[in-house]
Amino acid sequence: MRIGLAQINTIVGDLAGNSRRILDAYRSLVSDGAEIVLFPELVVCGYPPRDLLFKRRFITDVEQTTREIAAQIGDVPAVIGYTEANPTAHGRTAFNAAAFCHRGIIIASARKCLLPTYDVFDEARYFEPGLHPTIVEFGGLRIGLTICEDIWAQQQVLTRQLYGLDPVKWLAGEKIDLLLNLSASPWYNTKNNVRLTFVSDAAKACACLTVYCNSIGGNDELLFDGRSVACAADGSTIAGLAAFREDLRVVEVGKNISAAPSLHLTYAQPELADIYDALVLGVRDYAHKSGFKKALLGLSGGIDSALVATIAAEALGAGNVMGVSLPSVISSQHSKDDARLLAQNLGIAYHTLSIADTVAAAEHTLQPLFAGRPRDAAEENIQARARGLLLMALSNKFGSLLLTTGNKSELAVGYCTLYGDMCGGLAVISDVFKMQVYALSRWINENAERKLGRPGRLIPRNTIDKVPSAELRPNQTDQDSLPPYAVLDAILKGYIEDGLGRRDLIAAGFDAVVVHDVARKVDLNEYKRKQAAPGLKITPLAFGVGRRIPIVQKYVS
Amino acid sequence: MRIGLAQINTIVGDLAGNSRRILDAYRSLVSDGAEIVLFPELVVCGYPPRDLLFKRRFITDVEQTTREIAAQIGDVPAVIGYTEANPTAHGRTAFNAAAFCHRGIIIASARKCLLPTYDVFDEARYFEPGLHPTIVEFGGLRIGLTICEDIWAQQQVLTRQLYGLDPVKWLAGEKIDLLLNLSASPWYNTKNNVRLTFVSDAAKACACLTVYCNSIGGNDELLFDGRSVACAADGSTIAGLAAFREDLRVVEVGKNISAAPSLHLTYAQPELADIYDALVLGVRDYAHKSGFKKALLGLSGGIDSALVATIAAEALGAGNVMGVSLPSVISSQHSKDDARLLAQNLGIAYHTLSIADTVAAAEHTLQPLFAGRPRDAAEENIQARARGLLLMALSNKFGSLLLTTGNKSELAVGYCTLYGDMCGGLAVISDVFKMQVYALSRWINENAERKLGRPGRLIPRNTIDKVPSAELRPNQTDQDSLPPYAVLDAILKGYIEDGLGRRDLIAAGFDAVVVHDVARKVDLNEYKRKQAAPGLKITPLAFGVGRRIPIVQKYVS
Repeated sequence: MRIGLAQINTIVGDLAGNSRRILDAYRSLVSDGAEIVLFPELVVCGYPPRDLLFKRRFITDVEQTTREIAAQIGDVPAVIGYTEANPTAHGRTAFNAAAFCHRGIIIASARKCLLPTYDVFDEARYFEPGLHPTIVEFGGLRIGLTICEDIWAQQQVLTRQLYGLDPVKWLAGEKIDLLLNLSASPWYNTKNNVRLTFVSDAAKACACLTVYCNSIGGNDELLFDGRSVACAADGSTIAGLAAFREDLRVVEVGKNISAAPSLHLTYAQPELADIYDALVLGVRDYAHKSGFKKALLGLSGGIDSALVATIAAEALGAGNVMGVSLPSVISSQHSKDDARLLAQNLGIAYHTLSIADTVAAAEHTLQPLFAGRPRDAAEENIQARARGLLLMALSNKFGSLLLTTGNKSELAVGYCTLYGDMCGGLAVISDVFKMQVYALSRWINENAERKLGRPGRLIPRNTIDKVPSAELRPNQTDQDSLPPYAVLDAILKGYIEDGLGRRDLIAAGFDAVVVHDVARKVDLNEYKRKQAAPGLKITPLAFGVGRRIPIVQKYVS
Repeated sequence: MRIGLAQINTIVGDLAGNSRRILDAYRSLVSDGAEIVLFPELVVCGYPPRDLLFKRRFITDVEQTTREIAAQIGDVPAVIGYTEANPTAHGRTAFNAAAFCHRGIIIASARKCLLPTYDVFDEARYFEPGLHPTIVEFGGLRIGLTICEDIWAQQQVLTRQLYGLDPVKWLAGEKIDLLLNLSASPWYNTKNNVRLTFVSDAAKACACLTVYCNSIGGNDELLFDGRSVACAADGSTIAGLAAFREDLRVVEVGKNISAAPSLHLTYAQPELADIYDALVLGVRDYAHKSGFKKALLGLSGGIDSALVATIAAEALGAGNVMGVSLPSVISSQHSKDDARLLAQNLGIAYHTLSIADTVAAAEHTLQPLFAGRPRDAAEENIQARARGLLLMALSNKFGSLLLTTGNKSELAVGYCTLYGDMCGGLAVISDVFKMQVYALSRWINENAERKLGRPGRLIPRNTIDKVPSAELRPNQTDQDSLPPYAVLDAILKGYIEDGLGRRDLIAAGFDAVVVHDVARKVDLNEYKRKQAAPGLKITPLAFGVGRRIPIVQKYVS
């Protein structure tokens, strides 16, 4: 049987546009010989629709759109993720479902049984669970239909079994011939092997061909990597679709199971390549899906803005990116030189706007109220906010998306200025720790030739090698107020991502004074993160929708 | 039996501080003759703890703290909301529970059965549900223990029955003598009667005295109003505790059921008084719980900042509030006069900082890049951002909390400048529609004498009467770009709070062009709200944690 996988990029809520994308993919795969076509989870409305589901007409609009799509489906069936209205007055208003469409109508609807309600997922807020998986009999085959989490019952969330039902085990007792899974599974940096294992294990448990079709694209913070796969009954991978881009593929199975030997290669690329691809996709989709062709950012000469500029140039095209150097009276010459060199290397537009006059005017205006008080963080923040003001003026005037350049380490400890360097519509590397920023920058340089088809270093050597500094006062370095980044990042990973307490970190060998200082800063700066731009998620626990810490709280672990 | 209600104000995560508050209240109520003492839901850790629950030691720390509290409990039992660790490896890590403490130990733990997972609540993310309510036999009485939502099973959420179990019905079949409910039920403007009905209905269903103890205090966006009540077996209210402040009360029941005839008066105060009290509490608790004694805000001479200044003066004391007029070259004289008059009326500090120099410097710096382009929103935003920059400099220098003054109508349509007038740590009236801002301001003036003990108008008449304007360009008024506020607010309520679509609103008689324009603006400005300060919630649907709309989305209803 030839199965068509439609790994397509949809826009949340864009029912008309998604319809066209679905039908285009369907027709293309049918013409390539597909005998059944599989789409991702909630492909009709995009994922995650979040509280759009509470708009009174949303679910019926999605259903109506799905029926209109079904009307275009011919002899080759299509399995399409959509929202099915709950026909009863009990429980949530909808099911997260798969429409099995054939010859103009929806002949069966399969409901998602396991509703993820952790991290970035709130499905218990929206959906009523199905009681068990659905089996459709079609063309002499018994086809098991599952949706995303349904095949993840055995995962350990907080080292616990979350679910009472295991849909895969349930289907294993039903002698099915084919297992389909529609997914919208966002990528993060440790997910690849886990996901492949679940698909493979499901194939083995049900002893049948198992085909998994995942979303691709960036939707706000979430980055869907695609990488749809098919596994044979023995669990071996027989096909793998592209990572981080749309892909349509007809998977031929049966006698020629080994026909596609290298296809699961996409799961094997290095982690840094994955992160880079994910961030490029995230910038491109956030910008393009919200109508921006162009982006701009401040270039400090430092490594964070250099990395973001490089990603933006790849995502949007160098001609659509503007870098702006915003020196103050205390900015070093190397900051300006390194920024200009980076812009040259990338081929992006480059401008210099001095903040000196704006800062001087603001300080002069404040002088009567500030008289007699020592200079402190207030004056440092004026510099950062003058930069934000000028960059936002450019964003408003030219219709360009301002990108913020702060990394996860800075954002964690509040080493950033609210309404200053935190200004911007998208935080490109806010889930990338500083040590990863270095690693990614070195990797980019090493791969520059391959990526851009020309030799030479992209990110200036001095940008990578120099001592990091915010340059908000003379001779300042990051390490005046922070521990070395290797130490800081390790503490932050433990404290934020792993939920460890101060006691645990000290017991693990970190210096107690440093641990207390870092933990205190993380807690204290929740208010800044509350007002941060949405940030692209690349780890199991990013700041943003997946991490919900009260602002005013006093827990000391 | 004499039941002590401990309606106390806790701080999220402050286990040591909350312990002291609990034991102080316990001892006070025991000395007043209580024979059992009832506390609010999750009182040991504060509500809502959110993802603090995922910190590895949090649940065990709360359990340990609760055991330490229990060790101080004597012959008079106390029922205390806490997190009970889930002893199995299945399901979520904890139960939202009530510890029945007596003579030094926890003698029973009752688990919350219904876990609200809508609006601001994410309890399915954190807790495993109890299978049925718990009954404790104590002193010859059968006491039913429920937690908050457990008595709300019959509520209509989105006109639906969410739950399969009704703990009240279950208890009604168990012949109990006393029903206790521990709550952390945040206030909004239509909740009073609903809540009273549920307590009363539960009393009638179980045919016994029903005592409901609610949290009080502001925790980030949420405002808990207290208003604990006791209802007799016939459903009549026999005691009601204070609204929006701490209250300890021993409720005497039995023969003298009518002993407290006027106590449920707190439920009957006018809605505007409730809103005012709620906002005052929200400002006070947000500031004090996060360590701020002082606040500041920009005073434009307009009604929004006048209302926020009035609330802040009441919350923090006039001597702790600073109002700053930030005129531009196009600000009208009445703006400055009205701002000064307001500050005089309130008795708050008042300063004037011209933004002219900072704006001129920024525009001069941008001139080479802006040359030849017409003036537009970019220049208007520079003014708003220069104000934000100066206000934040004052906030940083003096350690004062900056309050933002935007109302819900503005925030809905994006009639505000990100990093400009949106700067601030707390959005005091971001859930108050503009027409309510007028109503509340008039109500404040009418009640000024009663509230402040002296005659005269607080908010200047001209501030209330004048045509609203952002004054970002000459002769601008809000109605240049927005429909009249009465129309705008009605459309916004339908579109945002009621989930109506454009079609529904047009069918309801609103002008189609206006409806499309307003809906478009609401959708387009999700990115601004993503970066807004936390806002005090006073309606069933506020911007913030209770409303989760994707930023990049294209649904047109």
